[in-house]
Amino acid sequence: MSVAQFASTDVVKTTPNLSIRDAAKLMRKHNIGLLVLVDHSDPYKVVGVVSERDIVHAIAEGIDPERPVEAIATKSVITVEAEDPLSKAAELMRRHNIRHLVVVKDGRLYGVLSIKDLVYEENALKAISGYEEWTFERGMSA
Amino acid sequence: MSVAQFASTDVVKTTPNLSIRDAAKLMRKHNIGLLVLVDHSDPYKVVGVVSERDIVHAIAEGIDPERPVEAIATKSVITVEAEDPLSKAAELMRRHNIRHLVVVKDGRLYGVLSIKDLVYEENALKAISGYEEWTFERGMSA
Repeated sequence: MSVAQFASTDVVKTTPNLSIRDAAKLMRKHNIGLLVLVDHSDPYKVVGVVSERDIVHAIAEGIDPERPVEAIATKSVITVEAEDPLSKAAELMRRHNIRHLVVVKDGRLYGVLSIKDLVYEENALKAISGYEEWTFERGMSA
Repeated sequence: MSVAQFASTDVVKTTPNLSIRDAAKLMRKHNIGLLVLVDHSDPYKVVGVVSERDIVHAIAEGIDPERPVEAIATKSVITVEAEDPLSKAAELMRRHNIRHLVVVKDGRLYGVLSIKDLVYEENALKAISGYEEWTFERGMSA
């Protein structure tokens, strides 16, 4: 099972100059927890991400929601390759304590994988829990 | 595997009169995505929950962050019993499209189970992916 099989390719993208409030509106409209920030002139070049958590922290810090989202975005984005196994994605989420990964292919934006994509799909669960490998091993010894 | 084995019992609780901004501060301080609102006179009686998503929606709607968190809280809380199987918790998260469940025991607050508790623990993954039942079946036929 590869990341590409479960990632959403219908990514909600925006540019870094969007206001924090408009970023919150965009999240609400699409019922999502992550926006991908892309370059003004290249919609497949990722320059950052903004999560719900980033917006909550901004409110905690009293940052004006009319400021550009760039002010609170994460620029060093954790990515996973579209062809990587799903278990690697789960491991990256664990290690970095995050719920979304930006999926790239040939260095360009391919999609987003959410922790929900892992838990909501039985096949994804089997892949990351080791069920798949175990079934495979059993097949080998049978 | 029961919910109780994976739920966090170290719940961050508050009362409904806390401001939205102070709720955001509390989330940031504890690095969590859900606050449980409890009754003023009974800290184990759940009266609501506030998630990161609720705070993002409040910002989208232009709600003043100095207002009480009660204004944006979810009052009809989705709960799971401490003794329920973990697979039931995963199913409830899927069905309601949520990432946290309030865990109750004898109708009172016991803990919180996060979607991260499911994905970050190999044993939890095995339990909700059906690996456990399958291993059991194999044991039966061996």
